[in-house]
Amino acid sequence: MKKLINDPDQVVSDALAGIAAAHPRLSVDPKNRVITRAAQTRIGKVALVSGGGSGHEPLHGGFVGLGMLDAACPGEVFTSPVPGQMLTAAQSVDGGAGVVFVVKNYTGDVLNFGMAAELAQDEGIAVETVLVDDDVAVRDSTWTAGRRGTGATLFVEKIAGAAAERGASLAEVAAIGRRVNAASRSFAVALTSCTTPAAGRPGFDLPEDEIEVGVGIHGEPGRSREKIRPAKEIVADAMAAILDDQPLSEGEEVLVLVNGLGATPLLELYIVFGEVSSILGARGVRIARSLVGDYVTSLDMAGVSITLCRVNPELLALWDAPVDTPALRWGV
Amino acid sequence: MKKLINDPDQVVSDALAGIAAAHPRLSVDPKNRVITRAAQTRIGKVALVSGGGSGHEPLHGGFVGLGMLDAACPGEVFTSPVPGQMLTAAQSVDGGAGVVFVVKNYTGDVLNFGMAAELAQDEGIAVETVLVDDDVAVRDSTWTAGRRGTGATLFVEKIAGAAAERGASLAEVAAIGRRVNAASRSFAVALTSCTTPAAGRPGFDLPEDEIEVGVGIHGEPGRSREKIRPAKEIVADAMAAILDDQPLSEGEEVLVLVNGLGATPLLELYIVFGEVSSILGARGVRIARSLVGDYVTSLDMAGVSITLCRVNPELLALWDAPVDTPALRWGV
Repeated sequence: MKKLINDPDQVVSDALAGIAAAHPRLSVDPKNRVITRAAQTRIGKVALVSGGGSGHEPLHGGFVGLGMLDAACPGEVFTSPVPGQMLTAAQSVDGGAGVVFVVKNYTGDVLNFGMAAELAQDEGIAVETVLVDDDVAVRDSTWTAGRRGTGATLFVEKIAGAAAERGASLAEVAAIGRRVNAASRSFAVALTSCTTPAAGRPGFDLPEDEIEVGVGIHGEPGRSREKIRPAKEIVADAMAAILDDQPLSEGEEVLVLVNGLGATPLLELYIVFGEVSSILGARGVRIARSLVGDYVTSLDMAGVSITLCRVNPELLALWDAPVDTPALRWGV
Repeated sequence: MKKLINDPDQVVSDALAGIAAAHPRLSVDPKNRVITRAAQTRIGKVALVSGGGSGHEPLHGGFVGLGMLDAACPGEVFTSPVPGQMLTAAQSVDGGAGVVFVVKNYTGDVLNFGMAAELAQDEGIAVETVLVDDDVAVRDSTWTAGRRGTGATLFVEKIAGAAAERGASLAEVAAIGRRVNAASRSFAVALTSCTTPAAGRPGFDLPEDEIEVGVGIHGEPGRSREKIRPAKEIVADAMAAILDDQPLSEGEEVLVLVNGLGATPLLELYIVFGEVSSILGARGVRIARSLVGDYVTSLDMAGVSITLCRVNPELLALWDAPVDTPALRWGV
């Protein structure tokens, strides 16, 4: 295993130092491991806090900023942050209107954000939790009871973040986040495994001619191990899984995220996007907006996830609202 | 080799279809392989055209849009586009004020853009060429006479693009592009090779515990093959190579690009950025602006390049000017 790191135990600390240096509009608390906006908390605005294991960058720290998250708590690589981090984050960004925790559905995250919500409420901070569970590949997995939370996290954080920026109440922001999650479906395929710095070797073995269909963002097993095939066929299967779970009718509009898992050339992601676009076009479904790139990654895994989110004009207007974060920026 | 492609011969065509579908503000001519802005050519504005082999995405197509390029010509993977493409691009975007060709210094690109410049001038289009040759690693290489053009291409395209948008003349835009190139230096390190779809196997062999120091963006050999070391030492060596070539004094300001070569986790790029920041800080050099991410890639190569560009307030204002492209977007 070769990595651009100093010490497997210092990966997150060293990366946080880099994030602090690279992004003057973020404020990094290295001791508590909390990333917040450098701008002062706005009194009366609902605050959004998310977090999870590191190794999925730019998720979540790269989504902190105007129009999206107020704070992110990075855990160790592929390991949930702890309740104390989340509490510190909530205390740092609460503007008196309450805090929404955006939680990807993994057992550790759910447990720790749950404890943090209790701690925060004990401190007088109102908390609502939005659970993200968009991955249709498997019902339960090694890391999850229920569906895993993956690419839809970006849609939830962007759209709920825009609602908070516009002055929506705690209940309203949480409700919009839940609507976005309910309208989203994802499916991922891995061409290679990924290697955590601590383990130093791939998390699972994948032969040179096989792919993991329905893989999770920590390399959790999917639905099947299959031979590599043309992109057109791989995408058709992924889209069938998504559309079987949430049929889309002619005239509907979607956000599309074609997301690289970390080691996939952008050239290949565009080939995947072309196939997604053809499949949706043939059904008369309109791609309202799209993103192609690495947004919710799994370290150095080669592969792609596809996320669709059904939108109406209200959600689309929130998507289009100004955002100013390291990983998403427009309208400012 | 596993790739998300349909056919090695269709990679560029299929990716162009995806680019067209993903970016409504771009216009893709699949036959001539030219990417332009969808918005109409502005009469009187100097047009910027760039291009080169595919496999370096988002370079160059991802930099087409307001404030940056007017057109990009993608060649086959790691293969120069042909003069006819460049001529078509120049004809498509010339607004009567002339065209600047931004050319990375590789033998094929230089030759073909040179022929295209002659053809365009025969058609009455005034052309200036800005050659980018920022890579300090080697003097000549397998693909290049003189230094290779790498990360500085982004700085040239952004800053010269902003000057063109503000109404600078052909000579002025070219002069600014050349100043940016002259003020820029790059150095890259590879942890793995990369695999072109046509070859189907890595372009070079790199043992499990070695790195290629000074690698080029097609996997061209660098200065030395060395054992993997902590990021701190790798970055120190890369920065020494850059600063030996272009010393920077206390109080000077730079743009910094910490660029992933395709398969490097963002977590690691932030660790590298932290080290770059420490080294510059110790010299009293201020990081005026920075980018951390995959901008000038080498397919699925793991590794990083570092580019510094010395700036003054004039260049910085052009850097900060609005840009609206798939890969860079702010102020709009």
